[in-house]
Amino acid sequence: MRERDLIAHHLAPLATSAAARGLTDDAAVWAPPLGRELVMTHDVLAAGVHYLADDPPGDVAWKLLAVNLSDLAAMGATPAGVLLGLGLSAAEDDGWLAAFSAGLARGLDRWRVALWGGDTVRGLAAAVLGLTAVGTVEPGTALARTGARAGDGLWVSGTIGDAGLGLAIARGAAPFDTALLGRLRRPEPRLRLGRLLVGVASAAMDVSDGLLIDAQRLAAASGVAMTVELDRIPVSPAAAARTPRDDDGLVSLATAGDDYELLFTLPPDAKGPAGTTRVGTVAAGTGLTVRGVTGALLTLDRLGFEH
Amino acid sequence: MRERDLIAHHLAPLATSAAARGLTDDAAVWAPPLGRELVMTHDVLAAGVHYLADDPPGDVAWKLLAVNLSDLAAMGATPAGVLLGLGLSAAEDDGWLAAFSAGLARGLDRWRVALWGGDTVRGLAAAVLGLTAVGTVEPGTALARTGARAGDGLWVSGTIGDAGLGLAIARGAAPFDTALLGRLRRPEPRLRLGRLLVGVASAAMDVSDGLLIDAQRLAAASGVAMTVELDRIPVSPAAAARTPRDDDGLVSLATAGDDYELLFTLPPDAKGPAGTTRVGTVAAGTGLTVRGVTGALLTLDRLGFEH
Repeated sequence: MRERDLIAHHLAPLATSAAARGLTDDAAVWAPPLGRELVMTHDVLAAGVHYLADDPPGDVAWKLLAVNLSDLAAMGATPAGVLLGLGLSAAEDDGWLAAFSAGLARGLDRWRVALWGGDTVRGLAAAVLGLTAVGTVEPGTALARTGARAGDGLWVSGTIGDAGLGLAIARGAAPFDTALLGRLRRPEPRLRLGRLLVGVASAAMDVSDGLLIDAQRLAAASGVAMTVELDRIPVSPAAAARTPRDDDGLVSLATAGDDYELLFTLPPDAKGPAGTTRVGTVAAGTGLTVRGVTGALLTLDRLGFEH
Repeated sequence: MRERDLIAHHLAPLATSAAARGLTDDAAVWAPPLGRELVMTHDVLAAGVHYLADDPPGDVAWKLLAVNLSDLAAMGATPAGVLLGLGLSAAEDDGWLAAFSAGLARGLDRWRVALWGGDTVRGLAAAVLGLTAVGTVEPGTALARTGARAGDGLWVSGTIGDAGLGLAIARGAAPFDTALLGRLRRPEPRLRLGRLLVGVASAAMDVSDGLLIDAQRLAAASGVAMTVELDRIPVSPAAAARTPRDDDGLVSLATAGDDYELLFTLPPDAKGPAGTTRVGTVAAGTGLTVRGVTGALLTLDRLGFEH
């Protein structure tokens, strides 16, 4: 089968929306809902950099979709459709494409997102997968990183550090655990929470590079200082079972990245929605302060992943 | 300088639209013009596959933008903004990024397009560059590949085969010529022509893989047969000076690809806009027929680039 037919065979059945035009035209055509603003993001996952070349292809597709939808969640948007940029190597054979497409189909279905189109190229040394996600918000309501104010509380959803432990498992460096590996490979974008935070959170972003470094970025974007208290960081039972509850253990969780939880600030007396935890505070000034389990302020060499 | 700062240094100054939010948020937020449909495309250019690793970086940026805008032109759309997915290797150093950004700035300015956002990753074996372009059309007016009817004329813009000759020059296999090399490296999306064709052309697409193979695809999408007459193919003076005007010479031009001209069909008696040439006809049936300069029908092994 020629490449073009192969792609069509696997992807065209997923492109069922009218906007995709059956993938036959040069571009997709979509009528956006009246009176909405569009929220648009593009994230890239590269084999050997963001995922392991032997990761299950269906999970790679799921994660590619999820990390982009996580950006939309951080803005309070509702996703509508995606464009896919598949750069493939010889390693992505027909079986890989079939499994990738099946995983993509599951994600599109789960989050009710349309596949609108995209492009596929062959002949790369290793796969590089790009995805553009488009969502909508009511005008002027998109969340931003810039609104945190002194006195606000700093909150985070879910649990932190699971995906980092999952990565150790995937690399064969830690005992197997389904839940932790699942957090690495099949993250869940916090779309419902993002929408709940619209009009409520003073600032928001998603945690992709580590709770601490992302808190530092949120503080910088808002022009404020933030303090994270390590003993407030929410830890899953699976992570707690293999991580000492001391400064080193909690810092390892808070710098691991790939969490795809939402990090946000709320006015001083506001209480976060169910499933969220207050992990710190916002103050006048600049920079991030990390308070250890004994109350001492920590000086850390590394806060997470730098790109 | 850290990667993040380096990217910000080069790209943030180009992201001047309100929608880009200074590249500080997780996604761009754009209010589309009321009552328009959106036209969206995503194309990938890979170093060593779609361009040569030592091509001028400014031209690479220009071409990345141009090939995507060419897709919008083929739909009759007016471009609005783009998202950029930069997958970079060690070869793309600070100087490369500076030159790339300068070329991108020229293209954004020329075509009045906003840089809304995107993503950058490092550590690839070779660069893989993706771009998503978003444009607008009046509802229901987007051009498509599907409307050609028996009796229509088949038309093409500009001249065909120049970029293929430019590729031979870039590879050191042909004598230097500024015009031909320029057609390869700095294609000009036919945006104005695309808009002119709205409501006029019965079908349209852009020529990226070769005039003949793309004509075959246009015929297939419309469920008709097409005939291309080789001696009607428009050839530039520079191409004519190095290409024999016989079947072999004209076939080489018509299968070279990278033209980024518009290929379209018009009702039988309609005349194409200035700068366009009638190269063939549409008939009932299926498939592509190629008529040589003596009037004989040709059987060809290859019609252009297959992906």
